[in-house]
Amino acid sequence: MIKKHMANPIVQPGSIKPSREGYRVKGSFNAGAAEYNDEIILLLRVAEDCIASEDSIAVPYYRFDSDGGHPEILEKKTSDPDIRLKDTRGVVYKGKDYLSTLSHVRIARSKDSVNFEVDEKPFLYPCDLTESYGVEDARVTKIDNRYYITYTAVSRDGWATALAVTDDFVKIDRKGIIFPPLNKDVSIFPETINGKYCALHRPHNEGFGKPSIWYSESMDLFHWGNHKCLIRPRDTYWEEQKIGGGAAPIKTDKGWLEIYHGKGKNQIYSLFLLLLDLKDPSKVLKRGNEPILFPQEPYEKEGFFPNVVFSNGVIARSNGSVNIYYGACDETVCLAETSIDELLSTL
Amino acid sequence: MIKKHMANPIVQPGSIKPSREGYRVKGSFNAGAAEYNDEIILLLRVAEDCIASEDSIAVPYYRFDSDGGHPEILEKKTSDPDIRLKDTRGVVYKGKDYLSTLSHVRIARSKDSVNFEVDEKPFLYPCDLTESYGVEDARVTKIDNRYYITYTAVSRDGWATALAVTDDFVKIDRKGIIFPPLNKDVSIFPETINGKYCALHRPHNEGFGKPSIWYSESMDLFHWGNHKCLIRPRDTYWEEQKIGGGAAPIKTDKGWLEIYHGKGKNQIYSLFLLLLDLKDPSKVLKRGNEPILFPQEPYEKEGFFPNVVFSNGVIARSNGSVNIYYGACDETVCLAETSIDELLSTL
Repeated sequence: MIKKHMANPIVQPGSIKPSREGYRVKGSFNAGAAEYNDEIILLLRVAEDCIASEDSIAVPYYRFDSDGGHPEILEKKTSDPDIRLKDTRGVVYKGKDYLSTLSHVRIARSKDSVNFEVDEKPFLYPCDLTESYGVEDARVTKIDNRYYITYTAVSRDGWATALAVTDDFVKIDRKGIIFPPLNKDVSIFPETINGKYCALHRPHNEGFGKPSIWYSESMDLFHWGNHKCLIRPRDTYWEEQKIGGGAAPIKTDKGWLEIYHGKGKNQIYSLFLLLLDLKDPSKVLKRGNEPILFPQEPYEKEGFFPNVVFSNGVIARSNGSVNIYYGACDETVCLAETSIDELLSTL
Repeated sequence: MIKKHMANPIVQPGSIKPSREGYRVKGSFNAGAAEYNDEIILLLRVAEDCIASEDSIAVPYYRFDSDGGHPEILEKKTSDPDIRLKDTRGVVYKGKDYLSTLSHVRIARSKDSVNFEVDEKPFLYPCDLTESYGVEDARVTKIDNRYYITYTAVSRDGWATALAVTDDFVKIDRKGIIFPPLNKDVSIFPETINGKYCALHRPHNEGFGKPSIWYSESMDLFHWGNHKCLIRPRDTYWEEQKIGGGAAPIKTDKGWLEIYHGKGKNQIYSLFLLLLDLKDPSKVLKRGNEPILFPQEPYEKEGFFPNVVFSNGVIARSNGSVNIYYGACDETVCLAETSIDELLSTL
């Protein structure tokens, strides 16, 4: 059984302080998750837009030059023939894509894993040209008492995956882009296997095939190679468009257990299970046929971008319990509780 | 002065033996180049299609299963409503992209750098699922007496860049995918800089920006990181659509000299110069404003895919002379002769 928590959504944008004047928090969702001291830490994606007049759109982004970063706003009348609204998430101006919101990563803390207190200030904020359209969807992996955070860096150069390291969730050491564009949904395994670090990643594909989940190896976490395609979207209601990895795989007796997402018909996102070989995670053992979680509740079906459940934060405890933190509708954080045994039994 | 050779095109598809019965050589072009013993070796891209009846198309590709690779042909009436011909290079069947030709890499040898003898058999042939739609556009870099060959591997998972190593252009050691899809135009620098191998690569981009030239580093040639965008297409006649690196950069007194290509208006491809810092090749020193080579001659303007000059093979000798081997119209190999001084003087 996977039990959606009664308190869902457990984090909502209304309670979050904007990062600067004139910005408005539209979503706090897709959170990475880690245990630190006696707390659960969520690395929230906080998406902000600007307050614009009724007949206009106002898109925030950052410009970087030799003086550092400068917040900019692209403000246009919606009647402007050069403006095209894609969906709630994107705007096209003069043929170029912009995001309707600028995301950063904010920390939320909880002692009971359900009630979270959100920091007043951002944790990861756009810091250079590679992040001018925002930083999104952090995933955390603890290796040897250090926390390795992968996140999507969006800019005019596309979306890529960058790495940051922290020991205390205060000081951040940014390591730059580890998977060049167009690549996201990167999660690092919590230990080396055969002397190598391993990761799942999701390079773009179009025309020839569909965006799929890939495997990669590294000697040092900064340089990655031996790229192999693991699984591809199935031609089903739930996975028709694309798939991508979630949080770091969980080590179980049966193999590495990964909760991944599928995007299917009508842009519906749902969550699936994948089991990889313990000693060679480039080998797929099992893959769930049906989603373990899909949009059913009102808070999963109605919101900023409807019909989305998306997880990049999972806490698996030594007693076998599993907390799946998941974003709903690109707007809120929700919690589903289960166990490793329950998850494995569905495979 | 850059002098196009009188004997151009110096390699033509008509003289090349097909790799199997029923195949027809449509192009021998985009050749990597290396000096080996007293010869120039070209690694030709040989593109083959299948002979089809007047009202049909026949697209060759490879299927790989546990029994190994099997040549397959997708043969359809051109009147089939599920078939859409993109241009001479591509076909869409039921919404999926296929290439109209299957490419492999074939060796050609020359003692005088102009007259080439082409091997009867392929050198690099599709060998697994990652290469089922062909292997294309080899680039060779000699490091410590070994030859490192990067090439584009095309499959339903998109186009990626793989690495192969040879000491003698007979035995090949395949190292798998080093830049995951969608990424091509990868050239490796001929020596380590600050203890690291360096490469140029060209990840895909769309919507946000345009395909641009990136820089990357490696400790071992197999795992790559520290990805940085070096230069982006300029909004000009020659570069409007995209740019990508050519052969391995040439070491000069003034910096690393790279001959890259631009795709501009009307799908015209031309060649440009880029100069990178000797000690830190992620630093751009200069970039040519005008192309050094563009389609002018009939053999550059008329062919399989018209108005293309594209180089991934350059031989720079210690006396300062430079041979630019370039593909014309995705059909033939041509030669342009110049020198490092001449090239640098245009910057």
